[in-house]
Amino acid sequence: VIVTLLTDFGTADYFAGAMKGAVLSVNPAVTLIDITHEIPAHDVEAAAFTLSAAFDSFPAGTVHVAVVDPGVGSARRPIVVEAHGHFFVGPDNGVFGLVCASARGHRAFHLTNEKYFRRGVSATFHGRDVFAPAAGALTLGVGPETMGPAVGDLARLPFTAPRRLDEHTLEAVVHIDHFGNCLTNISRADLPPAVIESGARFSINGREVKALRRFYDEDVGADDEPFVIWGSAGLLEISVNRNSAARLLDACRGQVVRVSTARVETVNDE
Amino acid sequence: VIVTLLTDFGTADYFAGAMKGAVLSVNPAVTLIDITHEIPAHDVEAAAFTLSAAFDSFPAGTVHVAVVDPGVGSARRPIVVEAHGHFFVGPDNGVFGLVCASARGHRAFHLTNEKYFRRGVSATFHGRDVFAPAAGALTLGVGPETMGPAVGDLARLPFTAPRRLDEHTLEAVVHIDHFGNCLTNISRADLPPAVIESGARFSINGREVKALRRFYDEDVGADDEPFVIWGSAGLLEISVNRNSAARLLDACRGQVVRVSTARVETVNDE
Amino acid sequence: VIVTLLTDFGTADYFAGAMKGAVLSVNPAVTLIDITHEIPAHDVEAAAFTLSAAFDSFPAGTVHVAVVDPGVGSARRPIVVEAHGHFFVGPDNGVFGLVCASARGHRAFHLTNEKYFRRGVSATFHGRDVFAPAAGALTLGVGPETMGPAVGDLARLPFTAPRRLDEHTLEAVVHIDHFGNCLTNISRADLPPAVIESGARFSINGREVKALRRFYDEDVGADDEPFVIWGSAGLLEISVNRNSAARLLDACRGQVVRVSTARVETVNDE
Repeated sequence: VIVTLLTDFGTADYFAGAMKGAVLSVNPAVTLIDITHEIPAHDVEAAAFTLSAAFDSFPAGTVHVAVVDPGVGSARRPIVVEAHGHFFVGPDNGVFGLVCASARGHRAFHLTNEKYFRRGVSATFHGRDVFAPAAGALTLGVGPETMGPAVGDLARLPFTAPRRLDEHTLEAVVHIDHFGNCLTNISRADLPPAVIESGARFSINGREVKALRRFYDEDVGADDEPFVIWGSAGLLEISVNRNSAARLLDACRGQVVRVSTARVETVNDE
Repeated sequence: VIVTLLTDFGTADYFAGAMKGAVLSVNPAVTLIDITHEIPAHDVEAAAFTLSAAFDSFPAGTVHVAVVDPGVGSARRPIVVEAHGHFFVGPDNGVFGLVCASARGHRAFHLTNEKYFRRGVSATFHGRDVFAPAAGALTLGVGPETMGPAVGDLARLPFTAPRRLDEHTLEAVVHIDHFGNCLTNISRADLPPAVIESGARFSINGREVKALRRFYDEDVGADDEPFVIWGSAGLLEISVNRNSAARLLDACRGQVVRVSTARVETVNDE
Repeated sequence: VIVTLLTDFGTADYFAGAMKGAVLSVNPAVTLIDITHEIPAHDVEAAAFTLSAAFDSFPAGTVHVAVVDPGVGSARRPIVVEAHGHFFVGPDNGVFGLVCASARGHRAFHLTNEKYFRRGVSATFHGRDVFAPAAGALTLGVGPETMGPAVGDLARLPFTAPRRLDEHTLEAVVHIDHFGNCLTNISRADLPPAVIESGARFSINGREVKALRRFYDEDVGADDEPFVIWGSAGLLEISVNRNSAARLLDACRGQVVRVSTARVETVNDE
């Protein structure tokens, strides 16, 4: 049985290690996998994105613990969610918003049964004291419905899908990856590949990007020319081959990209 | 069986991977857990602190390997320590000082039995060649007493507890975490919660901090106001909600915090 | 069964996690070990070096996945290599060049059998979609020869061994580790220890280094004096005790070190 961890704890402190110890104290046979501990501090949207891109590479039944939790100790609810045949444990602050949005359905429960908590829960580290032990219990076959009452209304993220401004215009947000690729939140359901191939124009920071590639190193266009590509999370990216598109386009996380799919009427067409 | 690793090796080189390979070469069934590899280079005190905050989240019988070892190859002794029902393997340079200080007792042995070393021990990488194989042997049930002679006098850290300057004043040192929280080395044994609640004053870098919170996001006080809180390691922290107290207070690791528990006599009390 | 991962993906994104999920989806019993995900982006030589220094700490039969793959999606071949009793999976771009150079022999196969790929291979993330699933299949006992046709001519690195300029002079390249040690690619086969002990002179950035130490903290010479030492990868390093030789010598990765083993004729010898 597998438990993954995704947090904003960094890897320099005892936090991630202590969470793993807390899982193993409940079930020493768990295989623990770090998705990342480098979510920017308190950035729930980045956590939701990374989780949604990673979880379905794992086998069904995996338990994913996501702790980006600025409200730890306050009234925000600890929850366990079942969706896509996986389990998700963490705070009810939108971190599971994308996972739930793409699911056919989900069940959610308010983690209130202290039987599944660590003895002596702190007010500052529910990752270790609440979420990790609950994850451990799930791997032992404890049903999420025994952990607390069902919850119908989960916290939502500000937005999870691109905004449609008009018939021909979408507005998307950007996430920057390690290589400087600018990932949008545009999936094939938002913008069919055929529409892009027929000439969509992407505008980011006043710069227009039109070239489309199938893979990064495709031998077309100039070096350092930005292009659009379907990335491995099933989302459109703006990239530059062997270079950082984010740096070359001065793009940052959370910024807006506008996509126009209107055919450009050539002026000299008369 | 679980082996944890805590080093100052960083994660960019082959060092941490090679240590894990060396453990698995002795016992391929071990579950390996990184506590951290980002202890500042050669900072034995930071290693001692992080280990002491992390180890007891793991089940009894866990083997913890701690390698912050600027004296590798010199006369400093490799040791194995049994304390709190856990095993600890590493150099005798104080890295286990806090773990031993909080234990009811401990046993320590000088790792001299080359039977448990890697073949061809280098003079520069005992993490891979001495400590990892010994940890692997411990997970196979080898008794620490068979690994070398008992050791009575372990190396100590400069200080492991706050200094009491007078009846009403404590001096503590600060450790900075990933979120910029300033952790002191003050535990509930040093300063009972009731004393703090009745009005202790913390002074750091010429700034006084008096507010006390139960959790970070508690709805009291101004934004960016530093406050004192009992953190998840059982130690007092100076924190700022959703911001870095270290940056706002210009605090750095190793710096001193003074705590005054004298009742402030109000001048107009006559 | 053990699978190690070595990439330039960093640890902030979903990439490393997704690869692990893809391995575990094929074989949930695998023990996954990160060697590193911090190879500089697209730096195949650094990947080859780190892999060659790490792999043989692991037990025979370990599967090592190395993905530094700027050509992903292009015509570069995905391969599986058997050498030293270990398996290696990744792109055919030289990343296995050092591992193969030190082996008595090796077998290599072009990964073409889609039966061992993830369903729906992307053009941008073969780490998750090709290499990880193939690694999982190897751990289940699938023979590499069933994964595709044998390959005789693997891509090579520009150079894998020091260059001999004349009878008394070697030119080596430098790799910098986390502590600032400057590792050369000079092994005992290139320069016997006896030759060094009789007075080899290392010249880096116009500075000459002659002192030789057995371990970093050896009590000889001045502080901050650079010295030469046999490091734990079996390669000569230029180091400074408890300090960064790279910073003190202004050295960077890929730079050249010249080694002269000619006896210095003393001028006043007549």
